[in-house]
Amino acid sequence: MSLDFLSQKYESLDYDQCENYYFLLEQRQQQRNLNILRNKGFKRWIVILFIGILTALTACGIVIATDKLASYKFHFLMTKMNQCDNSSFCYTPLFYWMGINATLVAIGSIMVTYWAPVAAGSGIPVVKCYLNGVKVPEVVRFKTFVSKAVGVIFSVVGGLATGKEGPMIHCGAVIAAGVSQGKSTTFKKDTHLLDEFKDDREKRDFVSAGAAAGVAAAFGAPIGGVLFSLEEGASFWNQALTWRIFFCSMITTFTLNIVLSIYHNHAGQLSYPGLINFGKFGEINYAIYEIPIYAFLGAIGGILGALHNSINLRLSMIRLKYINRNWSKVAESVFISIFTCSIAYSLIYLDEDCHKKELLSLNETIRAGCKESEFSVMSYLWLATPEATISRLFHSDDDMWTWKTLLIFFVCYFFLATWTYGISVSSGLFIPSLIVGATGGRLFYLLVKHTLPDESDWADGCKFALIGAAAMLGGVVRMTISLTVIMIETTGNITFGPPIMITLIVSKWVGDYFNHESIYDIHIRLAAIPFLYWEPPSLSTTVYASEIMSAPVVALRSVEKVDRIIQVLENETHNGFPVVDTEEFDFTESGSSLEPSYSSPAHYGRFRGLILRWQLIVLLQEKIFNENDEYHKITAGTFRDAYPRYPPIEKIINLITDQERQYSIDLRPVMNPSPYSMSHTASLNRIFQLFRALGLRHLVIVNDYNEVVGIVTRKDIARYRQHCHRGKLFLQTLQISV
Amino acid sequence: MSLDFLSQKYESLDYDQCENYYFLLEQRQQQRNLNILRNKGFKRWIVILFIGILTALTACGIVIATDKLASYKFHFLMTKMNQCDNSSFCYTPLFYWMGINATLVAIGSIMVTYWAPVAAGSGIPVVKCYLNGVKVPEVVRFKTFVSKAVGVIFSVVGGLATGKEGPMIHCGAVIAAGVSQGKSTTFKKDTHLLDEFKDDREKRDFVSAGAAAGVAAAFGAPIGGVLFSLEEGASFWNQALTWRIFFCSMITTFTLNIVLSIYHNHAGQLSYPGLINFGKFGEINYAIYEIPIYAFLGAIGGILGALHNSINLRLSMIRLKYINRNWSKVAESVFISIFTCSIAYSLIYLDEDCHKKELLSLNETIRAGCKESEFSVMSYLWLATPEATISRLFHSDDDMWTWKTLLIFFVCYFFLATWTYGISVSSGLFIPSLIVGATGGRLFYLLVKHTLPDESDWADGCKFALIGAAAMLGGVVRMTISLTVIMIETTGNITFGPPIMITLIVSKWVGDYFNHESIYDIHIRLAAIPFLYWEPPSLSTTVYASEIMSAPVVALRSVEKVDRIIQVLENETHNGFPVVDTEEFDFTESGSSLEPSYSSPAHYGRFRGLILRWQLIVLLQEKIFNENDEYHKITAGTFRDAYPRYPPIEKIINLITDQERQYSIDLRPVMNPSPYSMSHTASLNRIFQLFRALGLRHLVIVNDYNEVVGIVTRKDIARYRQHCHRGKLFLQTLQISV
Repeated sequence: MSLDFLSQKYESLDYDQCENYYFLLEQRQQQRNLNILRNKGFKRWIVILFIGILTALTACGIVIATDKLASYKFHFLMTKMNQCDNSSFCYTPLFYWMGINATLVAIGSIMVTYWAPVAAGSGIPVVKCYLNGVKVPEVVRFKTFVSKAVGVIFSVVGGLATGKEGPMIHCGAVIAAGVSQGKSTTFKKDTHLLDEFKDDREKRDFVSAGAAAGVAAAFGAPIGGVLFSLEEGASFWNQALTWRIFFCSMITTFTLNIVLSIYHNHAGQLSYPGLINFGKFGEINYAIYEIPIYAFLGAIGGILGALHNSINLRLSMIRLKYINRNWSKVAESVFISIFTCSIAYSLIYLDEDCHKKELLSLNETIRAGCKESEFSVMSYLWLATPEATISRLFHSDDDMWTWKTLLIFFVCYFFLATWTYGISVSSGLFIPSLIVGATGGRLFYLLVKHTLPDESDWADGCKFALIGAAAMLGGVVRMTISLTVIMIETTGNITFGPPIMITLIVSKWVGDYFNHESIYDIHIRLAAIPFLYWEPPSLSTTVYASEIMSAPVVALRSVEKVDRIIQVLENETHNGFPVVDTEEFDFTESGSSLEPSYSSPAHYGRFRGLILRWQLIVLLQEKIFNENDEYHKITAGTFRDAYPRYPPIEKIINLITDQERQYSIDLRPVMNPSPYSMSHTASLNRIFQLFRALGLRHLVIVNDYNEVVGIVTRKDIARYRQHCHRGKLFLQTLQISV
Repeated sequence: MSLDFLSQKYESLDYDQCENYYFLLEQRQQQRNLNILRNKGFKRWIVILFIGILTALTACGIVIATDKLASYKFHFLMTKMNQCDNSSFCYTPLFYWMGINATLVAIGSIMVTYWAPVAAGSGIPVVKCYLNGVKVPEVVRFKTFVSKAVGVIFSVVGGLATGKEGPMIHCGAVIAAGVSQGKSTTFKKDTHLLDEFKDDREKRDFVSAGAAAGVAAAFGAPIGGVLFSLEEGASFWNQALTWRIFFCSMITTFTLNIVLSIYHNHAGQLSYPGLINFGKFGEINYAIYEIPIYAFLGAIGGILGALHNSINLRLSMIRLKYINRNWSKVAESVFISIFTCSIAYSLIYLDEDCHKKELLSLNETIRAGCKESEFSVMSYLWLATPEATISRLFHSDDDMWTWKTLLIFFVCYFFLATWTYGISVSSGLFIPSLIVGATGGRLFYLLVKHTLPDESDWADGCKFALIGAAAMLGGVVRMTISLTVIMIETTGNITFGPPIMITLIVSKWVGDYFNHESIYDIHIRLAAIPFLYWEPPSLSTTVYASEIMSAPVVALRSVEKVDRIIQVLENETHNGFPVVDTEEFDFTESGSSLEPSYSSPAHYGRFRGLILRWQLIVLLQEKIFNENDEYHKITAGTFRDAYPRYPPIEKIINLITDQERQYSIDLRPVMNPSPYSMSHTASLNRIFQLFRALGLRHLVIVNDYNEVVGIVTRKDIARYRQHCHRGKLFLQTLQISV
């Protein structure tokens, strides 16, 4: 099976403003009036405030629900396990465990698979795509939000090797999109309060704030949130926007901390250390000779991360090929959940590593073959939510751990995490990567400690657990500055920032040596999404616009027959049509594409503007024909009301009478009169930069006489990837073979 | 006196790549070869490494020199003061003090004023302009670097109310520019090792890394550095670039910490708290009811910051008008230095606030009228480097301070700081703002503590000193996220991050209510620099390209006579010339501007490309004429060698014989064949976004037939500012009345 890289499923978003007559008219009426401007600015802050608060409340809901449910589940299981005979393997609790997990994961998976498939996975790839300018269907819909938020509770409590951080980020993005539009498609309700924010660009800005709020909520990391939003999403850094994003993620952090401080019975004490996600690290000392060790761990993390991504890519391709029915997706999720708890249960009973029960807080452990007053270390790792496991790996004493237990746990969790990411449940991968890394870090520490001649206190294991976690996560997600800040903020320790940075830098370098894509980029590629990376492929200077553009172009005349517009809309799937001068051409009324009137080079009329499909549909729907002379009825609002979903052309046709089909429409006041255009001699490099920097959806290619010769869309550009063969680089159109 | 906003002094930089024939040829030859690409990537990292290390070493030099010299100076003065009779006012030490300060400041000021005037002030505004795309003359020259680095030692040791942080950032930028080019104009030496980085865009990327390294060095804040570079400089956020910037600032931090740990006799202990700039804050607790107090302090900071900026603006305008001779600039600096130490000396002796000499470390204080075993609190504030003063305000016990002393110091330092910034010495304003703010914060704490019924431990003064410092600095520089991170990194405390954020957000809001510009923006405006802000003025949708463009345009034909090229270069100051089709026009050989051949609308030929002044000069210099047929001699390197300074046309004319003047040149292989162009119907808004996002220098405006009708440069756009009158907005061309 070979998927064409350009999946037809994905449309593009348009971050370039259409400055048509009605838009300019509205702007001119409004903009001299300072009050309207101030009002808009004020509304924007209010919307941001609500996004921040709602994201925090959602996150609180997820955190508290997960916490409570997991706690019930583990207590129930522990009671059952403690009822067992201590000497022999006991099956009853395992069946209970399997039953509970399978049920929970089944519910979560059914919800995602049947109701909102886009809610599967972490959500970070789709948010990235949205900010990049790709319209992944249903990505910011209310039902996606519900599946994502509720689904992640089921998958985490259901014992899968997943985290809730990615889904929280996606939830933040959906909240932002919903709140900023003041309307919901699912509820068919439009408050019309926020009509001025109804365009792709405004919505994108709010969504980037929502994503930042999501990170802030997931990790308690407001600055990390802003950086995440910028590193993964933004193309044009705007100070005012950053400023709002920052405010949003700060509001989220505050709201979250206030609610959680009440939940933890420390109401209002915002500096209560329990609010720090993975437990607060105290003073960590380090000396210069430790730096190479951190770099080494970073390298190991990079290798493991690359391995993780590579295995996951192969698994995902197998999934694409064989597990493509809904029931099989649910079945796989349920199978993994059962498998996970079987592994966990076996390890708890088979691994004989026991530890003295000194700490009172360890009530979430069981004996499982250990002596009285001891507990199984494996149960300490498995019988907890993934976040608690991280906290335990980070903060417990060094004498808790033996290399055997850590090694077994490390290997099992690595493969579980690799296998789990990509199944049809709402699931994040930050937490599993951190668990694997922290275990690896502790393991490394134990090995080094044993090989060193004197077992002196040259360092402590907590430090290495943290470094290991950073290294592994860095190798998997390949983020740099935002990840550094997130790690610093979640551990509440800044002194140890530089070692974390070193680790992450080396980890990314080494990971990139093996494969250039982060796990998110892999899934974006697998979904065949026309994503534009930061930089054009370096060979793109060798390709000309004339080679990448689509031609022939379907152009409309500035005053066009209704009949032809309907035909064009019916026969063509394009979203934008160049408008050309009427005088010079004699169109055959029947044909949808224009024949060039000069022999060479082929062109389609003098370029005057660009009109979008939905604008044409609105014109037809409102029956704005020259013969009716009702242009005065249109305002900028007429077009905005249709945003973001316009009716398909099939619904409109029935409204148009045969008489009306002979009418004509003047497209000039509606079209964008000064869209960006490029000469046919421009290189792909130049076109790429224009698209990326300005968030374009279409670019018309003109010849030296300003006559339309082609049109370039995002897909035409995203198609070009670079590959390397025997030290030589080639540009090619990417295909994915499954 | 009225300065035109468009000072002729500033040229623009060109961040848009010229994709001419030779560039594409080179790219194609190189880019299929992976080794060359890898080599370039590798070189880039090496350059970044050197920038990081050299910036750190420079910073170490400045820090250690300042520290040592200030320590000698204060010990000398204290010895002199202690020799005085304790009961009466004693003039000898004052004269010594004045003498030392005046001498040091005079040297620093002369250096700056006569040798490198651009080194005056903090350097942040000029670095901002450089990154924005304005070529401030000599801003990245070696002599500027020396004036800046050495000058700041003199001004800080000379007792002015200045810091060394801004200059360090500028130093980082100069180092980056120098190292990345592998050549120095001052030393007339070109190593030719880094020829591939010789264009404005590559250089800008390195300079942004250098600026980040500067911040990292100044504050020990690597993440803050990256954010500073992005917030103040970048327009297009590129992940790969950010990643290098991050590496650079991290290398700087490490190098700095290693050298300073040796200087502090803690070699290699990178977690030694003495490395944290303003002293490490321990655990700081806060509760939710304190948040409104922080917000209130933020508001006060915003008001004071706005006041500071407003007074400084007025003072700077007075300076522009009256203090414009070099000797008067030096005289003002010397006068301020004498005035500052007179104030300090008077306060030390007149203020009778004494404190018990409990701490052994207080050897930098004197009795000055106090009893045996006591010291003057004023001397504790004044007899130290500004950074030490901050550390003392942040960390000393609450019982050290009385409201009277704090109030007097606060008022004096506020006005000294306001007066000092803008004089002709190398001086930063972060530190003075922090001192003023920290004093204000302590003062506020004392007042509140006294008014509260019970004097219980509801909070401590250190916390308020920190919040006050953040509030004041936020009000002055109006930075948001980068400042938050810098404050967190310099205090080594992350728990207290959210209150700092709140304070900075409120401070910026309140400050922006009074005046919209940061102190840096004020100085950029005063220098009449064509700076492009983040967003176009909102009224810019009402202005069309045809209104802002310059016309008539001097165009060149694709094959042009040498004689006409020379004439055009002699008579016109433009830096870019559109190249138009030859066939359609009959140029009069004598005229430098073209007469339109159609009656209406006026146009200057069919647009084919854009050629830059220096490209023409290189062509003339190399005698590349059609009649010589030596086009094969040119490579991309021919043009790069001339970067960034080409000879003036006057030097070239003598090389061209009369015979050669009759020759012609084919401009097509050299011109940029696909420059960005815009329709005459485009709005200013659209043109602004194109300029800002892509870093353009010229934009050719064409009519519907792709004929050149005008040209827009950065100055044409930067000219438009918005002002508000009676609730209505207007667009106007800005003029500064002095």
